[in-house]
Amino acid sequence: MNIIHRVGIQAPVSKVYAALTTIDGLSGWWTRDTTGDARPGGAIEFRFRSADGKDIGGFGMDVLEQAPGQRVRWRVKEGPAEWLGTEIDFELTQEDGFTIVRFGHRGWPADGDFMAHCSTKWATFLLSLRDMVESGQGRPAPNDLKISNWH
Amino acid sequence: MNIIHRVGIQAPVSKVYAALTTIDGLSGWWTRDTTGDARPGGAIEFRFRSADGKDIGGFGMDVLEQAPGQRVRWRVKEGPAEWLGTEIDFELTQEDGFTIVRFGHRGWPADGDFMAHCSTKWATFLLSLRDMVESGQGRPAPNDLKISNWH
Repeated sequence: MNIIHRVGIQAPVSKVYAALTTIDGLSGWWTRDTTGDARPGGAIEFRFRSADGKDIGGFGMDVLEQAPGQRVRWRVKEGPAEWLGTEIDFELTQEDGFTIVRFGHRGWPADGDFMAHCSTKWATFLLSLRDMVESGQGRPAPNDLKISNWH
Repeated sequence: MNIIHRVGIQAPVSKVYAALTTIDGLSGWWTRDTTGDARPGGAIEFRFRSADGKDIGGFGMDVLEQAPGQRVRWRVKEGPAEWLGTEIDFELTQEDGFTIVRFGHRGWPADGDFMAHCSTKWATFLLSLRDMVESGQGRPAPNDLKISNWH
C-alpha cells in the first residue's frame, strides 16, 4: 500500500532539492526538530513536539539515495510500527516553469486509519515545502496545520 | 489502488453529513458548479471552470448509498478515463469531540501521476469541507487551492 502525492513548486529544481537534502531545509517544512546527517549513507532524526515542548514521537530515516536535482529516497528505521521498513521518495522533474515533486511513501502493511491520517498530513507538509521554497515560510511542526484529533 | 484520507471536523456529524448529501453542501467545498440529485439512486454532476468561466472538465457520479450520519458512497460514471468505475466513499464517526471523516477513492487502475495529483487535491478539498463546516467558508473550485501546473 502506497501513499502518493504530486505538487508543483514555482522555483528552480536546485532550491527544492536543497530543501530535501539539508537539515536546514528539512527543518523548514516538516519539523523544526530535525537533526542528523542528510547525506547518502547518513541518518536523519525527525522529532515532533507538542505546543508546550513535550516530545510526542518521531521517525528515524536512513538516507538510501540522492540523485542531485532528481531523486531522494529514505528508509524508516525508527518510529511507529506501521512506518518501520517503509520507504519515502521524492522525484523531481521540471514542467511548465514548475518543479514537480512526485512523492511516495511506500510499503504500508495495510490501508488503515493511520495511513489515511498520514496521507492527508503528507499533503499538508508537501504544501508547506512548496510555501517554504516559494516564499521562505513553511509550516513545520509544531506550527503544522492540524487536521484532526490526531493533530 | 486507493487514495485514502482522514480529517477531523469540530462540528456535529449531522452537519458534516449534510455537506456530503445536499447539492448546496457539496457546492460549498468541492466545486460551485454542482447539480443533480444527491439522494440514493440519483446522479450528481460536478463541473469545474477556469477563472474566466470556461468549462475545463468534470465528473458524473451515481449515488450508491447513504446511511444517515454514517456513510456516503458514489460511483463515477462520467469523467477522465482513470476515474471511470472508481468509487468514492466517506465514512463518518465521532471521536474526542470531532466528526472524523474517513475518505476513500478506490479502484484506480494504476498509481500514476494523475492519481498522485488527485490524492493531494482530495486532501485540500477535505480541508475545504472542514473549513466550510466549521466556519461557513470553504474553498470550492474555481477558488480552490492550486497545487501545481495541473491546478
